[in-house]
Amino acid sequence: MEQQILEFELTKEFRDRIQLALEEHDDPFIRKALDGVKAEDITALLYEFLPIDSKYIIDLHAIDMQAEIIRGLDPDIRKQYLKLYQPKELAVFLNQLLSDDTADILHELSVKEREEVIAFLDPELRMQVTDLLRYEENVAGGLMAKELIRAYVNWTVVQCVEEIRKQAENVSRFYAVYVVDDHEKLLGKVALQDLIISDARKLVADIYEEDIISVETYMEDWEVAGIMKKYDLESVPVVNVQGHLVGRITIDDVVDVITEQAEEERQIMSGISENVEEDDSIWRNTRARLPWLLIGIFGGLMNAKFMGLFEAELSRITAIAFFTPLIQATGGNVGIQSSSLIVQSLANPDFVDEGLWTRLIKMFFVALLNGLVLALLVLGANILLFGEYRLSTVVSIALFSVVLFASFIGTITPLILNRFGFNPALAAGPFITTTNDLLGLTVYFFTVHLML
Amino acid sequence: MEQQILEFELTKEFRDRIQLALEEHDDPFIRKALDGVKAEDITALLYEFLPIDSKYIIDLHAIDMQAEIIRGLDPDIRKQYLKLYQPKELAVFLNQLLSDDTADILHELSVKEREEVIAFLDPELRMQVTDLLRYEENVAGGLMAKELIRAYVNWTVVQCVEEIRKQAENVSRFYAVYVVDDHEKLLGKVALQDLIISDARKLVADIYEEDIISVETYMEDWEVAGIMKKYDLESVPVVNVQGHLVGRITIDDVVDVITEQAEEERQIMSGISENVEEDDSIWRNTRARLPWLLIGIFGGLMNAKFMGLFEAELSRITAIAFFTPLIQATGGNVGIQSSSLIVQSLANPDFVDEGLWTRLIKMFFVALLNGLVLALLVLGANILLFGEYRLSTVVSIALFSVVLFASFIGTITPLILNRFGFNPALAAGPFITTTNDLLGLTVYFFTVHLML
Repeated sequence: MEQQILEFELTKEFRDRIQLALEEHDDPFIRKALDGVKAEDITALLYEFLPIDSKYIIDLHAIDMQAEIIRGLDPDIRKQYLKLYQPKELAVFLNQLLSDDTADILHELSVKEREEVIAFLDPELRMQVTDLLRYEENVAGGLMAKELIRAYVNWTVVQCVEEIRKQAENVSRFYAVYVVDDHEKLLGKVALQDLIISDARKLVADIYEEDIISVETYMEDWEVAGIMKKYDLESVPVVNVQGHLVGRITIDDVVDVITEQAEEERQIMSGISENVEEDDSIWRNTRARLPWLLIGIFGGLMNAKFMGLFEAELSRITAIAFFTPLIQATGGNVGIQSSSLIVQSLANPDFVDEGLWTRLIKMFFVALLNGLVLALLVLGANILLFGEYRLSTVVSIALFSVVLFASFIGTITPLILNRFGFNPALAAGPFITTTNDLLGLTVYFFTVHLML
Repeated sequence: MEQQILEFELTKEFRDRIQLALEEHDDPFIRKALDGVKAEDITALLYEFLPIDSKYIIDLHAIDMQAEIIRGLDPDIRKQYLKLYQPKELAVFLNQLLSDDTADILHELSVKEREEVIAFLDPELRMQVTDLLRYEENVAGGLMAKELIRAYVNWTVVQCVEEIRKQAENVSRFYAVYVVDDHEKLLGKVALQDLIISDARKLVADIYEEDIISVETYMEDWEVAGIMKKYDLESVPVVNVQGHLVGRITIDDVVDVITEQAEEERQIMSGISENVEEDDSIWRNTRARLPWLLIGIFGGLMNAKFMGLFEAELSRITAIAFFTPLIQATGGNVGIQSSSLIVQSLANPDFVDEGLWTRLIKMFFVALLNGLVLALLVLGANILLFGEYRLSTVVSIALFSVVLFASFIGTITPLILNRFGFNPALAAGPFITTTNDLLGLTVYFFTVHLML
């Protein structure tokens, strides 16, 4: 049986062997080892080497392959690579790419370099790219490619096919022909499969689908992703405010948007403040972690100062201190749970927004139930473990209150952040935990102060 | 200007108006209000009503629309709907769907119901679905659809187009024709765009691309997602172990896989133990939160018991207690950060696995740097805030050790979970926090015991 899955496996041995060949400038070996390997796999391999060595590997390939390899690179890492190229060299391989990928790469250069590179681009690509660079990267205009097949509504099917033949080299991965009127206004589309089986003499006007979903240039990337996901679209045309067809977005770009969003959210939730990967440098890893740790430390010092106010109580009944971890951990967990559910529901605009009060009332009942169960359980356990009725009761009352308070904070914080335009996921990480630690302590010592 | 974005906006007013119409059985109003609304938007609307009312709305639509509406429903909610249908009714609309969607829905029924429904399916769909039901839902075989356009390598382009014409009704969203030999073995593909511009008399053998990526039926869904994402594929053919073409997976299914994975991971990280949404019932919300809260409580009680062992020290120097929140919060934060980065790197198999030791050594240096910065900072702050040299030194030494320990636990736990086949994301949530709380306390009191 032949190998059907042409996936290339990147092993430590292979990497080390290539590294050796690089040191010895053994071009024939590298060429042979990478012969037939797909651009995407070579891209993945390059992450294992220094930029200068990677460029050496890239240079051994044909120009279209070079372009594909660089296209696939992670933007952060690509920036380092781009520094190794002269503007003219960059233009040579950018000329091999689609307008959206070219624009993405140009965004990673300084303004001066960008202008220099643009001057060397092929005239048509230059025009397309100049248009794309006007848009922010996180809106539809910044995601779209200019290359698409456009058919005028009064064309025949033959004319359509002729246009496809002409454009076939420039436009890859297209699934439909977009139909426009004489003023370039988007009217609808013809799926390629319908074009194939249509009589060549028919008019586009007779076969196109009018019921087409499009997005506008200024729409945010996550909105575009939501629409494409909801309606299962493999590509979507982009129109400007006049309704003129200006580009199209394909699903692969949107898959990247979805993945990046999920990753960003996870990092926020785990208190990592810049986009970092385990195999980035020690320095970068440290720097990405410090800010949230410092906020945690600040919270911890405030906790200490606060507990200091109750020194008299604490020295009278030392056992009070035993239960601060219990109270704080529960507050932290409840807070994260609540905020995470709100973040999830904010990210999913498919439901009717029930309004703040409905949310809070529901939150209240869930917290009530959880709080009661936990408080009773802890009461029983404490009496069993410590044989102390009075303090055990106080701990349970405080625990119950903390569950209610932490739920409230966990619910309201992401809503407030969202209202003021911040990422609500900020509220599902160390921020909420630090807040709830302090809150838990306050509630606990206040209860102690009142009741003991 | 006409509205270009045909997206339907779901408002509270609209929902309430439909609810009223439902109560009054005002069919004409409902029909008119939903006329021209896309199936996906009606699906979203239905989440606002009881299943029985939703069925009422669904029943007002044409059968193909009914099928589309039900296809789009969230599986959890759909289960409740399906109970309202007789097997024969179900078969009527399943006959409108593709084999993969049909199989997904059949998976949601009891074995008995499933068999009854299958008996009513159209013969071809029945055959396809029976084949699909053999696969687990989370492997390529469970994701794929049987409908595809297959061309034999010795066909001409005309024969290919003829086949597309024949299949056009059954197969939607296809972007390529898959080329097989006489034994159904996958050889390659012809993109639709190439088919359109090819001379009709040419042989498929002369125009097909051999360099095609396929997946095998038993591959896991996240692997399939990874491959489609890496190579920017809009669809991928599925082969069995003999290399025979048995189905194809389209990118929309994979987008769902990616989104679900991200959501599942977030829930695990925030200590929510079942798939729950904010607008699920209070009972369900409570139940989803309790398990991790209980584990946190258990940890808290162990913390209390442990601190009890140091009662003598605590009553001698009450201030010791002030710093437990600081120590524990930092341990928790460091642990989450470390484990989250490991989880991320485990999810991304594109890098060469550096091995356990390289990981641990790197983790050690990052922890060393962070630990030093934090410990010195806290030392200064404590001396300023409390004017206590001895205890401040002890706290800083403990803090430094906790950062090292928590980094180690945060790094090693996801690796161990992963090794034993558990989801490593489990280590990026309350589990690691609870462990690190206890660990932090132990280290702190041990240091106190030795040094004060």
